[in-house]
Amino acid sequence: MTAQSLTLVSQSACFGGTVSFYRHVSSACNHEMKFSVYIPPQAKLAPVPVLYFLSGLTCTEENFMVKAGAQRFAAQYKVMLVVPDTSPRNTGIAEEEDDWTFGTGAGFYVDATQAPWNDHYKMYRYVTEELPALIAEHFPARSDRQGILGHSMGGHGALVCALRNPDRYLSVSAFAPIVAPTRSPWGQQIFTRYLGNDPSLWRNYDATELVRTHPFKHPILIDQGTTDSFLEQQLMPEVFQQACAQVGQPLTLRMQTGYDHSYYFIATFIEDHIRHHAKILREF
Amino acid sequence: MTAQSLTLVSQSACFGGTVSFYRHVSSACNHEMKFSVYIPPQAKLAPVPVLYFLSGLTCTEENFMVKAGAQRFAAQYKVMLVVPDTSPRNTGIAEEEDDWTFGTGAGFYVDATQAPWNDHYKMYRYVTEELPALIAEHFPARSDRQGILGHSMGGHGALVCALRNPDRYLSVSAFAPIVAPTRSPWGQQIFTRYLGNDPSLWRNYDATELVRTHPFKHPILIDQGTTDSFLEQQLMPEVFQQACAQVGQPLTLRMQTGYDHSYYFIATFIEDHIRHHAKILREF
Repeated sequence: MTAQSLTLVSQSACFGGTVSFYRHVSSACNHEMKFSVYIPPQAKLAPVPVLYFLSGLTCTEENFMVKAGAQRFAAQYKVMLVVPDTSPRNTGIAEEEDDWTFGTGAGFYVDATQAPWNDHYKMYRYVTEELPALIAEHFPARSDRQGILGHSMGGHGALVCALRNPDRYLSVSAFAPIVAPTRSPWGQQIFTRYLGNDPSLWRNYDATELVRTHPFKHPILIDQGTTDSFLEQQLMPEVFQQACAQVGQPLTLRMQTGYDHSYYFIATFIEDHIRHHAKILREF
Repeated sequence: MTAQSLTLVSQSACFGGTVSFYRHVSSACNHEMKFSVYIPPQAKLAPVPVLYFLSGLTCTEENFMVKAGAQRFAAQYKVMLVVPDTSPRNTGIAEEEDDWTFGTGAGFYVDATQAPWNDHYKMYRYVTEELPALIAEHFPARSDRQGILGHSMGGHGALVCALRNPDRYLSVSAFAPIVAPTRSPWGQQIFTRYLGNDPSLWRNYDATELVRTHPFKHPILIDQGTTDSFLEQQLMPEVFQQACAQVGQPLTLRMQTGYDHSYYFIATFIEDHIRHHAKILREF
């Protein structure tokens, strides 16, 4: 296997470590992709566990790094943070910019099977295979100690990636995740266009469906704001909670009174999430 | 005095308190102005000290609130945060958008005396008089416990506001401030256009000049990254350090190895700054 090349776009010191932004040619997406990495100071001495953060609709690889205040706790709990962009961009697909819930900034962490999206929109493979291999190759990462978390569309992505690959991700958590996309308006519209008309083919990307047959060893942590404007129609955490209860999947669902869907919500509870992951990743 | 009206633009829960964005008609600037406020949870019980943060070039009232991670410590140390925009916007002045270091996003916290800027660019009066009065009127703020800090252009602003009004601001600190604008290319260009050609009229807006004749009771805290690309030509902290030493002004200047001019730098050290202010504001 030849080394894949990364291009460093920018780098800043942060909490004794470094925040770096990279671009590279992705084989999964057959296109340029971007991601950011926070390397905590302890990684100078020995490889550290890795936490992948999957962002929500319209986000890039920058939002979480600049808004969540996560580096403070990544440094404290000695974990690396990796944040991929939410889709390929400027692929030349005519409709990619038409809808903020689809195409650019809205890859939904699936491998598209429908034209024209199936040429480039392979975010599931990118996130679960190509990116971890790249991180293992280029950074002081413990590939046997990986966790994943995300927000909204990225919360859906994190739950799906973890449930389908419990050997690859030891810990999972989410902020305001889309937990049942096959039942939500966003999910139905998006899955039809990326995956086709047959809903049975969507189930592999629906956390509520997956959890019934894919037990996850460690408890799942979810925070959800009660004044989140997407809560009732798109997010439906109670549906996931019910499925977890039915199969005995440990879940901590925290309904946070008065919190909305913004990064102010994420910043408030990010410490708890990083601690949740670090505890599992270090004790495993 | 009639109550000035504020329009709430948006509000989010954050660390048990609220981040709110407001717009209002400013009498100082004779134009609409915007600011953001973080109210910590303790303010529900009793008024709290207030910390004003003045932002750098190109910033709005949002950057600090969303990027610095300051609310965590404002809640912990029980202080309110107030962040004004960096200039009036859309005033109709033809050249206001031409230069990122002047006009829109670059009010430099001075009261302009030169046309056409003197119609609206009265940021010094806005920040030191109108905004504190507005905060006192509308929020649970202790107006007798105010501190001020800022970044870059806003670090200059914070030092100038505090040195000229030590009765109004009990504590001051800065990240990568422009400490000697009358000697820096940015300051010289900007002051000529806002204040006119006579450099003697610029001294009231130059922290290094002011500190020689305006002692500040409590120590001044400054953090400066060593790889900041503006360090040598525009910032020159050693010039301020020398002036402080000459007059016996207590100053803690921390040169932070490897840090740049970004919010990753600010986020890393914001806890120290809020603690610095809270200690003075609570013990005074």
